[in-house]
Amino acid sequence: MNYSLLFDQIKKKRSYLCVGLDVDLDKIPKHILVEEDPIFSFCKKIIDSTNKYAIAYKPNIAFFETYGSKGWHSLEKVINYLSSEYPNIFTIADAKRSDIGNTASRYAKAFFENFSFDSITLSPYMGRDSIEPFLDFENKYAIILALTSNEGSKDFQLTKSDGIDFYEKIIHLSKTWKNSDRIMYVVGATNSSYLKKIREIVPDSFLLIPGIGAQGGNLAEVSTFGMNSRCGLIVNSSRQILYTDNGFNFDDHAAKEAIKLQKIMENELIKFNII
Amino acid sequence: MNYSLLFDQIKKKRSYLCVGLDVDLDKIPKHILVEEDPIFSFCKKIIDSTNKYAIAYKPNIAFFETYGSKGWHSLEKVINYLSSEYPNIFTIADAKRSDIGNTASRYAKAFFENFSFDSITLSPYMGRDSIEPFLDFENKYAIILALTSNEGSKDFQLTKSDGIDFYEKIIHLSKTWKNSDRIMYVVGATNSSYLKKIREIVPDSFLLIPGIGAQGGNLAEVSTFGMNSRCGLIVNSSRQILYTDNGFNFDDHAAKEAIKLQKIMENELIKFNII
Repeated sequence: MNYSLLFDQIKKKRSYLCVGLDVDLDKIPKHILVEEDPIFSFCKKIIDSTNKYAIAYKPNIAFFETYGSKGWHSLEKVINYLSSEYPNIFTIADAKRSDIGNTASRYAKAFFENFSFDSITLSPYMGRDSIEPFLDFENKYAIILALTSNEGSKDFQLTKSDGIDFYEKIIHLSKTWKNSDRIMYVVGATNSSYLKKIREIVPDSFLLIPGIGAQGGNLAEVSTFGMNSRCGLIVNSSRQILYTDNGFNFDDHAAKEAIKLQKIMENELIKFNII
Repeated sequence: MNYSLLFDQIKKKRSYLCVGLDVDLDKIPKHILVEEDPIFSFCKKIIDSTNKYAIAYKPNIAFFETYGSKGWHSLEKVINYLSSEYPNIFTIADAKRSDIGNTASRYAKAFFENFSFDSITLSPYMGRDSIEPFLDFENKYAIILALTSNEGSKDFQLTKSDGIDFYEKIIHLSKTWKNSDRIMYVVGATNSSYLKKIREIVPDSFLLIPGIGAQGGNLAEVSTFGMNSRCGLIVNSSRQILYTDNGFNFDDHAAKEAIKLQKIMENELIKFNII
C-alpha cells in the first residue's frame, strides 16, 4: 500500500485507528471455542464489525505462534481474509523480528510475500543490515521499535548515548538508511512529551502508537503532539476493543468501542484541518 | 536441560559444537526435494550424521517461518525428532524474539512448552520485562543478543553509553534480573578481544558464538579468550556443515566437517584441562 492510499483511507474513514488482534483463547466468548478455528472465527467477526472505523489491523504474531503450526495456519487465514475482503486496509505484522541480512531476508519474504502484510514491526538492536532487507520492497514498510511503553523501556531506550537518548539515536541513524522513506516508528503513548521530540527528528514519518487503552496512553494528547499534515499516526487499541463483552453480540460491542475511539480521532482530524 | 547435563555432554563428546539448521531449499541436495517434507528430511539426515560430534542444534526459525504454517510444521517435526531421539542434546530456537511481558509469555510458551526447546535467542532492546518471562522456566535458557558479528553491530551495540559500550551495559544490567543464572549471551566471534572483556563481566555464563565458518570467526582464538572452567562456550557452525556437498552422501560430508571442528575443540578442552 502506498502512502497516498493510506492517507485517503484516514480521510475517508475519519479515523487513524488500528485494531490489534491479540487473540487470547481464555478471553474470547465461549461459544466461539466450539468452532473449527476459533482464532480465525473470532478475528473475522471483529474485522467485519470494526472495519468501517479502522484503517489498519495488527495481528500480534506471538498470540498465533503460541499454538505452533496450527496458530500459523490461523494467521494465514486472517491475513488472506483481510487482503481479499478489505484490500484498502493497512496490515501490520506485529512480529518485532530482528536478524542479520541473510536471515532478515527470510523474515521479509515470510511476511511480505508468502503473507501479504503491508508492514512489519522490527527490533533495531542489530543495526542497519538487519533492517534494510525489509526496505527493498516497494509499498511495504518496516516499523522500527523506537520508544516502547513498557517499564523496561527505561533500561536501554532511555539511556544516554552520545548525549541523546538511545531511542533518538536509532531514529536519527535510521534516516540515513537506504529507502528510509519506507520506515515508520513504534512510539509508546505513555509519555507524550517524547512525541514532541520525535516529531522534531521525523516530522513526516508515520508513527505506530500502541499504548492507547489497556496501556493507558491518552489519545487526545498523543494526537496533539504527534499529528502531522497527513495525520502521520496509526493508533492501536487491542484489548479495549476485543474483550469489551463476551456474549453472542461481542462483535457489536467491539464496534461500539471502535466508534468511541473513531469519534475522538475525527475531532482531532478536524482540529488539524485534515478533514 | 540443566547445566550439569550440558557440561557432561561437552566432556563426553569432547566438543562444544552447535550445528545451525539454516535450511535453504535452494542449497540442499536436489534428490531431497522430491520428499514429502524436504526440510525435515534434510534436517533428520544432518542430525543423524552429526549428533556424535555436536552437543547442540540451533534451528534458525526464519528459515522455517519463510514457508508459513508449512515451515512451522517442519519445525515441529525437527524439534520433536531431536527431543525424542536425542534427549541429551541441547536445543536452541534461534528466534531473536523481543516483546513486552504479556506477549513475551506467549513466545515463551510457544518455544518452551508447545515446542520443547531448551533455549531461545532474544533481542534485549525492550529491557528487563521483555526477557524475564523467559526466565520463569526451570532448566530453560534465554540467550540474549549481546554483541553480534554483522556490520550493523557497530550502529548501536558498539556505541558508548555511560562510558561503556552499549552491549556491555546490557550484559551488566541483565545480571540483576530475576533468575539471571538462566541467561546465556550471543557473542559474535569476529573480534575475540571483546570476548576477553565479556568474560570479565560474566565469567561463569555460557556464550553462544555464531560467527565460526561462513562468518569468519577463528575457533582457536575464540576458545582461548572465551573458555571457562565448565567450557562455557557453544560454538555454532551452519553453512560450513550443511552445504559442504550436495550429492547423495551429503550427510557423510557434513559429518566430516563436524569432526574437523570437533577435533579442534577437543584440543582446546584438553588445553584447558577440562577433559
